[in-house]
Order: sequence, then structure tokens, then C-alpha cells
Amino acid sequence: MSEQQANEAAKTLDGWYALHDFRLIDWASFKLLPGDEREKIIQEFTGLLKKWGAARDLESGDSTLYSIVGQKADLMLMILRSTMEELNEIELEFNKSAIAEYLIPAYSYVSVVELSNYLADGEGDPYQNPHVRARLYPKLPESKHVCFYPMDKRRQGNDNWYMLSMDERKSLMRSHGMIGRGYAGKVKQIITGSVGFDDYEWGVTLFSDDVLQFKKLVYEMRFDEVSARYGEFGSFFVGNLIDADKLPAFFYV
Amino acid sequence: MSEQQANEAAKTLDGWYALHDFRLIDWASFKLLPGDEREKIIQEFTGLLKKWGAARDLESGDSTLYSIVGQKADLMLMILRSTMEELNEIELEFNKSAIAEYLIPAYSYVSVVELSNYLADGEGDPYQNPHVRARLYPKLPESKHVCFYPMDKRRQGNDNWYMLSMDERKSLMRSHGMIGRGYAGKVKQIITGSVGFDDYEWGVTLFSDDVLQFKKLVYEMRFDEVSARYGEFGSFFVGNLIDADKLPAFFYV
Amino acid sequence: MSEQQANEAAKTLDGWYALHDFRLIDWASFKLLPGDEREKIIQEFTGLLKKWGAARDLESGDSTLYSIVGQKADLMLMILRSTMEELNEIELEFNKSAIAEYLIPAYSYVSVVELSNYLADGEGDPYQNPHVRARLYPKLPESKHVCFYPMDKRRQGNDNWYMLSMDERKSLMRSHGMIGRGYAGKVKQIITGSVGFDDYEWGVTLFSDDVLQFKKLVYEMRFDEVSARYGEFGSFFVGNLIDADKLPAFFYV
Amino acid sequence: MSEQQANEAAKTLDGWYALHDFRLIDWASFKLLPGDEREKIIQEFTGLLKKWGAARDLESGDSTLYSIVGQKADLMLMILRSTMEELNEIELEFNKSAIAEYLIPAYSYVSVVELSNYLADGEGDPYQNPHVRARLYPKLPESKHVCFYPMDKRRQGNDNWYMLSMDERKSLMRSHGMIGRGYAGKVKQIITGSVGFDDYEWGVTLFSDDVLQFKKLVYEMRFDEVSARYGEFGSFFVGNLIDADKLPAFFYV
Amino acid sequence: MSEQQANEAAKTLDGWYALHDFRLIDWASFKLLPGDEREKIIQEFTGLLKKWGAARDLESGDSTLYSIVGQKADLMLMILRSTMEELNEIELEFNKSAIAEYLIPAYSYVSVVELSNYLADGEGDPYQNPHVRARLYPKLPESKHVCFYPMDKRRQGNDNWYMLSMDERKSLMRSHGMIGRGYAGKVKQIITGSVGFDDYEWGVTLFSDDVLQFKKLVYEMRFDEVSARYGEFGSFFVGNLIDADKLPAFFYV
Repeated sequence: MSEQQANEAAKTLDGWYALHDFRLIDWASFKLLPGDEREKIIQEFTGLLKKWGAARDLESGDSTLYSIVGQKADLMLMILRSTMEELNEIELEFNKSAIAEYLIPAYSYVSVVELSNYLADGEGDPYQNPHVRARLYPKLPESKHVCFYPMDKRRQGNDNWYMLSMDERKSLMRSHGMIGRGYAGKVKQIITGSVGFDDYEWGVTLFSDDVLQFKKLVYEMRFDEVSARYGEFGSFFVGNLIDADKLPAFFYV
Repeated sequence: MSEQQANEAAKTLDGWYALHDFRLIDWASFKLLPGDEREKIIQEFTGLLKKWGAARDLESGDSTLYSIVGQKADLMLMILRSTMEELNEIELEFNKSAIAEYLIPAYSYVSVVELSNYLADGEGDPYQNPHVRARLYPKLPESKHVCFYPMDKRRQGNDNWYMLSMDERKSLMRSHGMIGRGYAGKVKQIITGSVGFDDYEWGVTLFSDDVLQFKKLVYEMRFDEVSARYGEFGSFFVGNLIDADKLPAFFYV
Repeated sequence: MSEQQANEAAKTLDGWYALHDFRLIDWASFKLLPGDEREKIIQEFTGLLKKWGAARDLESGDSTLYSIVGQKADLMLMILRSTMEELNEIELEFNKSAIAEYLIPAYSYVSVVELSNYLADGEGDPYQNPHVRARLYPKLPESKHVCFYPMDKRRQGNDNWYMLSMDERKSLMRSHGMIGRGYAGKVKQIITGSVGFDDYEWGVTLFSDDVLQFKKLVYEMRFDEVSARYGEFGSFFVGNLIDADKLPAFFYV
Repeated sequence: MSEQQANEAAKTLDGWYALHDFRLIDWASFKLLPGDEREKIIQEFTGLLKKWGAARDLESGDSTLYSIVGQKADLMLMILRSTMEELNEIELEFNKSAIAEYLIPAYSYVSVVELSNYLADGEGDPYQNPHVRARLYPKLPESKHVCFYPMDKRRQGNDNWYMLSMDERKSLMRSHGMIGRGYAGKVKQIITGSVGFDDYEWGVTLFSDDVLQFKKLVYEMRFDEVSARYGEFGSFFVGNLIDADKLPAFFYV
Repeated sequence: MSEQQANEAAKTLDGWYALHDFRLIDWASFKLLPGDEREKIIQEFTGLLKKWGAARDLESGDSTLYSIVGQKADLMLMILRSTMEELNEIELEFNKSAIAEYLIPAYSYVSVVELSNYLADGEGDPYQNPHVRARLYPKLPESKHVCFYPMDKRRQGNDNWYMLSMDERKSLMRSHGMIGRGYAGKVKQIITGSVGFDDYEWGVTLFSDDVLQFKKLVYEMRFDEVSARYGEFGSFFVGNLIDADKLPAFFYV
């Protein structure tokens, strides 16, 4: 592989920074509180979510809250912002809030919304292209379900993604992209890059109103060479949207 | 492998969503409670189990409770429901209940009852076939023993399941299925798919009145190429049924 | 490998179920108790050990208690019983006992005493053979030292035990067994199978009055192809016998 | 490889010892304190940071504090000193301080600033060379962002760094170094060696005012054979500088 | 490999049993104690260390205490004794002591001082040889620094130490030993065997007055085939000697 190719391969388009923050709820402690204190805490939390969500209308970020199924986490807060400092500030504000005293950190992921250059057409400044901008600075869909997992490209013996030529990778990614396209309208997919930011190389966040589409999409892709030979996957989290107005009921005990 | 084959391979029939919820009992705290409070807590828990179990008669789900042997968990609650939201609601109700204050999350698994298309005969709408429906929407047997483990198909060097052709996989799965069939009447097996939902690709739940059959079945299968070359296994949990009427004795201290 | 061979390979003789239960002692809390309460707790624990040990004379099981060296555990309780339910009941009784409030679960292993069929001579009903029975339903020796470790047979690339023919496995196991025999009189070895019951495929429990024999035996076996190419080992625990009459001194603070 | 070559390969230039100390903040406990006590604690912490930082002007070490994004840690304190004893003393002083009661250890790394001899020109005593000294005894830049990760050189099958000849390694490292040089002025890189000191072989600490440069640099390097075939990476931590005067605001609740 | 060779390979000379006991200090709780109680606790601990150290003059064992750098541990107590029971008794005495209420178990290692037979000259009873005895029953040097790590010999694909012939292993170990000899006078090395006793096969304890020698030694060895192809390493711990008279200052708060 020539240096030129490597450089090309390394070029990505980067949009908003992303924090996926998973927490467990300490129900035993929360239940000990008097009802009016619990209510106050949920009001404060609702206020924070609203405040963080205001970025959506300003087109300076977005955020959403899902309830995670199973014991790995109870909540996933996903925050998009234009700087790493803003993510850090929101995290700090969250950690200092009253609700955080009843939440136990379970997992988090730091990344940045990314478009790889494998499918780029290479004309003009992509950051000015509205289609590109819509993907780099996405509005999070209010889909009923979310699926999140981090992943690496494998570097193992003969299955070493990073030793392939740019052309090989390009061709493999094209067929991989075709599968994704087959789910257009059913699954919205946000790829975030985390090389240098977190333990895996990418985070994948899927949104759908039909939770079964996550299984179909990920399973179909697993037979594709990109995943079959070169994919290494971390933990999978699946969950359901918590609308702002469902929050009090969710926390009611 | 043609795209057509991959698509075929990726087709599965999906039934009820499944939550396997494993917990440890915090006996030290539970014993501190006065006897009548303990009784009230067990009554509430019994009521919840009954309420969740009512889905069985409505054919809208099922649930069961087992006592797990060894320190990995004390209890396994298995819940089947027709939507991911219902699983989440039951989990939430369980977490908010009094007994949950004395239970420590130990492991959980999120999946959906699945029939692979390897053995499909391909005639008619399988979701209308009563044999298929009985397997996708199963009544949980009240067997004395349960065995649960999650598993992956291996993708490693020359042992990469997802790089095999549909025909190879079909033929391997056929011989694998033959072993399972040899245990008909002795072991009931529920396969749940978890690609996109949890960390492994499948969950296997076995039920039997003879606990030794789990060992025989899993060991015999291990010599079969599907397991020998392509199986990756997670933790194994084995346990004994807790009948509703044995629950008070189980918790009596 | 023919189906016939696989089936043969999968046949084992199974005896008593085994629970190895490792716990750490919470000395800081235990020391807070007044002396007479500590004494009462130890008396209750001594009573339980005696009660569980009574199975020995009834030839319906056995049990023993060792002190483990190092921080992985302080105690190992090993219980043998003829059903999985009995193991579960003893575990439950142990968990509900007063001493358990000062013990922290550290590790456990669920298995069944097993004789492989590799060395079987194949004549008559082995379950009626007194030599076989003595190994399937063993009296635990009151040896000064114990060593426990779980293990798997490897399934990795070219080193895949489960892809070998019955004849290859038989011949490998024969030479493996020869090493073991060289330690006759010095080390007593109980193999328990845990396929379908716990995370590894076997548990190995060694007993000896000379703790160095554990090292010699395991190290010598490691050069044998069965271990060298096909053995995968879990944690090793080594410990010293706690005689019933040494128990009060052990817990005296 | 001749013994001579191995010896050469093993020669490194070693400067200051480094401790990277990552902690989580226990906000729930910290918030329970009265405001004036919190203030006193932060004042003491500020005083310690100032005291440790004084080494900078004395050219006997340096230190810096960053806020880490995500749940892996909240703070990273990085300390450089000329002896292992000094690192240990500062760690002890930190552990005994009031703020440490509200900090939970999350990760740490022990290493020594290192220049490999792959790029050495070999003339004169390198420890007298001012360019070399500036790299072995670096002033930490007050960059807005930090990135830390530990790494190994792989020793696996055909991808075994330590079985390559000195010439092969030299040539591979040269092209690797070229990529790093492309980021001159954008990213400052401090390599610390930890063979014999901590679990990985090296620690990499990157500083930049543009956090995206970490991603670009690490990703571009991943296509270089040194990383692609021979790199094994631990956890990645990314964070933002906490100026001394921002500390009270950071801890204000 | 002939059975004869395997047996030879398995022969080792074994000396004192060793317990490496790593603990973290719970400073938050320790600081809550009144000053005179803290003093009493340190006096008791000093007394225990002295008592355990008395074995040194009796030539029946030895012990030493180091402060560990980084968060993996704060203290390493290393105990040598002639029986496993004595190690266990000292551990028990330590666990029951007052200081142990403020120490959190972090890691431990159980092994026995070992000389491999690879370099044996084979004449006479080695246990009567004073040079051999000095290595099997070593006086621990009061070096300023310690380094401890556990290790395995690899059994992986083509890099399987235990499938090599005795001659190959002998020749590899000879060149490996040469490197160690180059550090004579700079680093004292105690190899302890842990096959059958703990999770790795060996423990390596290095002592030096120059902490950088640990890095040089381990790094140089890593290029040697024995380490490069056949070494698997656990965690590395590095620390500084705590003289008995420095102990009160160490714990002073």
C-alpha cells in the first residue's frame, strides 16, 4: 500500500461529538425518598433533558433518552455536541444533578459522528453538501427503539483489515453499504468514530420503530465479508424510547 | 457466496421476545427484616409471578422461575412476551418491587424465540403453520431442571461460520439437528436469537426432568462439527424449578 | 469421524453431583461481633458441617472443608450428593446460615463425578462394578491438602480435541492416564464433568498429604500432548484441610 | 538475530518517571459536605497541585490535570519526576489528602519517558544533547486536550515484533515516525516505556488544542504496518485541560 | 518427545513456599480513627512484621514489605516459609490483625521457590549443594526496589513450549539465562513455580537498587526467543522498599 493510499484511507468527515451514557437505577435508594422529593428530582432531570434538547432547534446538537432492556443498563442518554468540551460540561452537569445520586454508571462511549471516505464522490467541499451535513449533524429520530454497539475492524493473522489495499477495502465497504441501504426507511444508522477517543474504533447507533429490524440488519451483515472476516463487536444494548412525558411514570414508585 | 444465499441465510422466523433475568439473593439484608415484612414481600412477589404468568392462558407470553445452583446466581426468571416494550415493563415492575431490594443483578439475556431457516421446508406461510407457531410461541414446560447458555458461531481464521456457503451451513446444521432430535422427549430446547439485542448471537434454554440429559446433550453436540469448530460458548447456568407453592419455603429464614 | 464414534466418545459414567463453594471471610465485620455471638455462629456452622457430613456414613454423599491459600478465597466447601436438588438445598441452607453473613462468595463450581469411557473395558454394567462405584461415589480423603482447577479441551485451529477421531483421543488419553497412575498413593484425583452445568468442561480436584505433588503432577502432565496441545485451564486453588476440631481456632479472633 | 542486534534493540534513553493517575469523583458523597468544607478541600487540592507543579520551574519534573470524558474516569493527574520514589511519595500524599476521600481509583499507569534507539544517530552522549534532553525531561504543554493509551508490540503467530531483525524493526519504525512527524505542531507526543513497570509495554500521551487530531493521527497510524500488524492497544482516555483557576468551578455543586 | 525426556523436563528443585500478598490501603476509613488508635494499629503491624521476619535468622523463611507504585496495590508483603501451612497461618494472622481492617485485598500469588533442571549439572544431591540451597532458601535482599510479575510458557499454534523437545528447551533456556547473567550484581531474581498452585505457571520477583534495571532486563529478554515466542505475562507490579522504621511515617496522616 502506498503512503498516498494510506492517507486517503485515513480521511474521514467528522461532525458532532457524541457521548452515549448508560446508567443503572438504584431503585432501593430512590424508593427511600419521600414522594415529593422524588418528584422534585424528576422535575430537575426533566428540566436538564429539556435544556440539553434545546440544542436541537439551534442546530448545535441533539440528545435523547432510552430505557435499556436487561441488566446491562437501565437508561441510555445520547448527547451530540459540536465540541468535546460541551460533552464534558453536560456530563459534569448530569453527574452533579440530584438524579445522578440514584444512577450507577454502567458504560459510556465517546466518539464523533463520522462519514468514511470509501463512498465519497470527491467533488466539492463535502462539509458544504447538505446531504453530507444532514448526516454529520443529524437530528436524532424519535424512533421507538435504539440499538448501540461498539466495533473494531479485525487485525488478526490473515484477517487484517488494515493491511488490505484501499481498493480492496473500498470494494468490500461498497457491498457492505448495499445491505445497509436495503434497510432504508426501516432503520436509521449513525456511525461514530472513536479511534483515539474510546476503546473500540467505531460506535454504531441504530434507530427503528420495529425492534426486529436491528436483528435482521446486524445478522444479514454478519454474512458480509466486512463483518464476517473483519468485524469485532463489543456489547450490544437495546432499548425503548422514553418520551419526556413518560419520564414521571417511568420513575414512579 | 452470492447475495441471494446470504439473504436466505439471514432469514429466520421470530416469535416471542425473551428476557432471562438472573439475580443473587442478599440474604444478610433479607434476614434483618421482621418476619411479617418478609412474608409481605414474598406475597407481593408471588402476586407478580402470578400476574406475569397469566399471559400463558391468554397465549400472549409465558414466564417461569428457577433456582440456580452455584454462586453465579440464585434465581432465574424467564419471561416471554410479544413485544420488547412488555419485557421492559415487566423488568421495571420487578425492579420496583420490594423483593428486588434484596436481589442483586447477576446476569441477563435479551433475545427473541427463533427458528432458523436451515431446516425449513419452505411451503406456505410458516407463521400460520401450527407446528411452527408452537415453537415460536412456546408454553414453557414445568420441567424440574433448566440449563441456559449463550453462544456465538465462531469467526476465526479457517473456522469462520459466516464465510461458509449456505449449502455447507445447511448440511452441518442438519447433522447437528439430528443429535438434538435424539433427545426428543427427554430435553425440550428453546433457541432464542440475540444478534443486535445482546452480546452473544443465540441463547439456548434447555428443560428436562433429568438434569444429566443436559450434560449428555451438550457433550454429544460438542463432537459435532457445528460446535467443535464453530461454537463459542458463554456461561452455563443450571437450576431447579421453584413451584409457586415452594416459594415461601425457599425464602423462609 | 463416524456418528457411531462420536456417540461412543460422548458416553461417560456419572456419579455424585458436586458443588465446590469458595468464600472469602469478612473478618472486619466478624470481629465486630461479641465473643459469645461469634462462638454461637461457629457452633451452628460446625453443626451444619456435621449434618452435611453425615451423608458419608449413609453412602449418599460426602463433604469436606479446606482453607485456601492466597486472596482468591479463604474457604472451600466441597459437597457431593446424588441429586442436583440436594446440592441446591445445602447451598440454600448454607446461604441462610449465620456464618454466611460473614462470608463473601468468591467462586463456585457445579459438576458431576465422571469416568470417561476412554479407558473402559466395556464388560458388564459398569455401575455394578465395585471399582467403578468407588470412583463414582467416592469417600473424600482427609488429605492435608487440596488443589482444584477447572479445565476445557481446546478447540482452536489445528488443536481441536473435538475434531480428533475416537482412536486418536483414546490413545492420547491412555498416555495421559499413565502419568496420573505414576502418582498413585501420592495424589487422589477426582474428575468431575461440567459440560452443560458450568463454564468449563471439567473440574479436577486433587488431594494429597504432600502439597508439592500437585505441582509435580500438573507440571509433568503439561508436557503430555493432551495438556500441551489440548488443555485450557481456569484458576487454580490450593489449600489445607480444616479438621472439624480446628474450626474454632481458625475463626478465633 | 545476533545477540549484538538484540542488545542494540533493547537500548533506550530513559528520562523522567511518569505516573498517570485516573480517578472517578464520588459526587454523591462530596455533595453531602457543607459548602465551606468543600471549599477547604478544593483549596488543599489546589495547593497540592501547585506544590507538585513547582517542579516545573526547578526542571525536576512536571504535572498536569485533565478532566476525562465518559465514565472511565473523571480526572487524570499526570506526574513526571526523576525517581520512582518521588512518584510514590506524591501518590501517597494525594491518597492521604482530603479530596482523595471523594475520588475513586479508576486506572493508573507507571512508566518512564523513553526515546527508542531506532532513530538515534549515535553520535556523542545523547543525554547531553539538548534536543534529546528536551524530549526526555519534557515540559508538559498546556494543550486543551489530552489522549492517553497504553500499548504492546504484538507477539502472535507470524506477527511477532520481537522476532523481527533490528533492520526490519528500524525500517518499520522509520515509516511509522514519518506519520507522527506529519502532525508536528498539531500534536505533541510523549512516549513512556513501561516494560517491567506496568501491564503494557508503552504508554502514549498525546496533547493537542484540536481534539480531532488525536483521531486523525491514531487512525492514520493504524494503516501503518507497525500498528496494523504489530500494535495491541489498551483503553483510550480523552479529556480536557482543567486550568488551576477552573478547578473551583469544576468542583462547585 | 520420549517419556524419559518429559520426565526430565518436569523435574525441578523446590525450596521455600512463597506468598506475595498485595493490598490497597483504605485511607478514608483509616483517617477516621483517632491518632492513638492508628498508632496502636501500626505498632501491632510492626510487631507482626518483626515476628514474621524472625524466621530469617532461624533460616526457616524470610519476609519483606514494599510500597507499590500506582493503583494496582499500595503494599506488597512477600513471605517465604518451608510449608504451605505456615504461609496459610501467616495469612490468617494478617487477615485477623487490626491493620487488615484498613487494607483491601488487591492480588496475591502462591508459589514455591524453584530451580529448573535445564541448567543443572546433575552431580550429587543438589539439595546438599550450598549454591543451590542459597537459591532455594534465599535471604531476601533489602533492595530499594521490587518488581513482580507472573508468567506462563505459551501453548499456542506453532508456538507451543510444551511440545518442544527437552534439547530445544534446554538450548533456548541457556541463551535466556545468559541475558539474566548479564545483570548479575544489578538485579537479584527469584523464580517461583506455581503450576498447580496459582493461575500462572511461574512468578518472577526481581530486586534492585536501580529501578531502571527491571525495565532493561525485561525488555532485553523480550527479544530472546523464550520470551518473544513463548512468554505470556500477567500484571507487572513495581515498588519501593518500606524499611521497618519508615512504616510509621508511611502510615502517618
